[in-house]
Amino acid sequence: MTENTSITPRGRVLSGMRPTGRLHLGNYMGALYNWVKLQHEYECYFFIADYHALTTDYADTSNLKQNIRDVALDFLSAGLDPGLCTIFIQSKVPAHFELNDLLGMITPLSWLERVPSYKDQQEQLKEKDLATFGFLGYPLLQSADILLYQPKYVPVGKDQEAHVEITREIARRFNSLYPGRFYLDANAAPWELDAVKTKARKIAKQPDKDDFNTHELVQAAHQTKLKSGYFVETILPEPEVLLTPSPKLPGTDGRKMSKSYKNTILLSDSEPEIRSKLKTMVTDPARIRREDPGNPDVCPVFDLHKVFSTEETQQKAREGCTTAGIGCIECKGWLADGVVKALAPIQERRRYFEANPAEVDAILADGATRAAARAAITMQQVRSVVGLE
Amino acid sequence: MTENTSITPRGRVLSGMRPTGRLHLGNYMGALYNWVKLQHEYECYFFIADYHALTTDYADTSNLKQNIRDVALDFLSAGLDPGLCTIFIQSKVPAHFELNDLLGMITPLSWLERVPSYKDQQEQLKEKDLATFGFLGYPLLQSADILLYQPKYVPVGKDQEAHVEITREIARRFNSLYPGRFYLDANAAPWELDAVKTKARKIAKQPDKDDFNTHELVQAAHQTKLKSGYFVETILPEPEVLLTPSPKLPGTDGRKMSKSYKNTILLSDSEPEIRSKLKTMVTDPARIRREDPGNPDVCPVFDLHKVFSTEETQQKAREGCTTAGIGCIECKGWLADGVVKALAPIQERRRYFEANPAEVDAILADGATRAAARAAITMQQVRSVVGLE
Ligand code: SF4
Ligand code: SF4
Repeated sequence: MTENTSITPRGRVLSGMRPTGRLHLGNYMGALYNWVKLQHEYECYFFIADYHALTTDYADTSNLKQNIRDVALDFLSAGLDPGLCTIFIQSKVPAHFELNDLLGMITPLSWLERVPSYKDQQEQLKEKDLATFGFLGYPLLQSADILLYQPKYVPVGKDQEAHVEITREIARRFNSLYPGRFYLDANAAPWELDAVKTKARKIAKQPDKDDFNTHELVQAAHQTKLKSGYFVETILPEPEVLLTPSPKLPGTDGRKMSKSYKNTILLSDSEPEIRSKLKTMVTDPARIRREDPGNPDVCPVFDLHKVFSTEETQQKAREGCTTAGIGCIECKGWLADGVVKALAPIQERRRYFEANPAEVDAILADGATRAAARAAITMQQVRSVVGLE
Repeated sequence: MTENTSITPRGRVLSGMRPTGRLHLGNYMGALYNWVKLQHEYECYFFIADYHALTTDYADTSNLKQNIRDVALDFLSAGLDPGLCTIFIQSKVPAHFELNDLLGMITPLSWLERVPSYKDQQEQLKEKDLATFGFLGYPLLQSADILLYQPKYVPVGKDQEAHVEITREIARRFNSLYPGRFYLDANAAPWELDAVKTKARKIAKQPDKDDFNTHELVQAAHQTKLKSGYFVETILPEPEVLLTPSPKLPGTDGRKMSKSYKNTILLSDSEPEIRSKLKTMVTDPARIRREDPGNPDVCPVFDLHKVFSTEETQQKAREGCTTAGIGCIECKGWLADGVVKALAPIQERRRYFEANPAEVDAILADGATRAAARAAITMQQVRSVVGLE
């Protein structure tokens, strides 16, 4: 048996990001940096998940509009190129909601209740009332977001791999309830079709029947143990995880860089801001005085060097640190040089798009049109196998 | 304070029906018969709730397409006039799904879990697996269906009144989180605005602030106990129940007429079918022989006489029954005359639309366009107060 989906020249890839404010270096290295590479290899769809922001922040949406705008600017500044990929805002493609509602019909409540982040986040965000239908449905909406584009891959970091599993489960359930389209191979042996139909007649207990639907044919083909001669077009193929590097970037306080810790360096921070933030960054705690040698392997500053400095600078910093040849201020200055250099082209693009807001609007509008057109293909297939039309 | 919604010349009314097959006399008298009258008085939107059918029947959708078509034919046959009202299929207006997903964000799970029909139906339909996200969300989707059109009224029978309550609750919650738009009366006294702004400054603890959002103004106006001078446009006004008669029609076995009891007379049944079904209908059980007088007040046949026969025929039947002057067969013949007469214009229209399927398609397509245009007005307001744009 061959199972397949519509064949595209390049594998399709989908990923999204919640608009929660301007992106920092951690967001960039964990996602956007990889996306910028993927757009050259795959047919990519990248979206701003505005409805996902509502799952946790419905009670205070005062920054939502600005956050959506900031993420759009960050996408474009980071180098996502609307000539290479499709960039859009989730809620501008209403098929996301239709597929979400449709998949909700077949998704057991228990699958959603047992998603680990459901209880975890309710615990962590105790000040918010998250005992809502929408918050429980968060992983389902995420699955609809993905499956709507029938992608081959979902790019995620190691720690996010499990999140794709429920999407695969929901796809499997959909495909088992609505088993796609059934084709016979053009050069199938006549006995192959006969064998399937004979079995289908037996299952239906109608010896004269000749008109079978996909369900019946697939079921019969399975029961004849037929291995070839036919082809099932699966409507919602299970997407595969595309593991992308997600280095754990420390923030200025040494903990993981995260908006909630207020320890971030933003993609849009100016050079003076970057230098002044790095100046306050924690270092190897054992290096108290200038004369003490330090250990780069336990120093968060050095973790950033590994990402943003050249091999040469890293070498120089390591040597200076371990021999007490340099002070931490000097070391951080070198790091700042690297960060500033890495962000320079990003910030140049940002200045351009900030000065040309109509161009950003046009890119997002065009992206929504393209995404909606691709989504319409899926929805037409979905509606047809579900029996809506 | 004045709370209001957009003013329309005629009150807007919305109602829908699940496509579960051809309609019977009970469906007709409980809903369509009333809708046909309402279309002359109100701005009416009537829809075929295809996604609602999926909440319980997702596992077998083999009849869905035909059922949708049958309900469309029944709508038109019963006399819904696309020149007077808007007739459409729910899933052709994707804003239903967007509003559903948005309202899901603010709807507590507990509200849905305590809807009486949730546990009841799970009990009743034990053979189906209804522990799904979509089935739990059924009343929410119903609420979105309604609120999307900002209707003044929802026409329901006495027994359905409670169903509208959760819609009103969800609307209240939405309006309290996103309190609409705030306008000052053109001829408000200057001190009125000053009083509101002074209070708003106090609440914000910013003595110089002058730029307030609706939230802040409404809150301040409430706290100044200001009773006039401003106007709040509520985005999702709570719809009112429009009680419509829903006579309890017995089926041929004397129980409530219902598809699941297989005791129905369909709107599309032919005259011979109607006559033969009524012939088998149960009567006053005490009237065993032709010579026994009967009691019309306990006879299901007579319940149908009350709906479908003239006063005169009812009189004649009552007298004949209580004096044993007529047999039940004769009595049922008179009833059949009344039913056939009532259905004659309906069946004539049905024949017309069956012969002109392209016209039905065009009516549904036009209805979807009109409904989507009205829904877009609501969604623009909703997206704006939620802060999506
Ligand atoms: S010199 Fe650099 S690597 Fe060494 S402790 Fe200071 S900041 Fe860290
Ligand atoms: S005569 Fe008519 S009303 Fe009387 S029992 Fe028979 S069917 Fe019923």
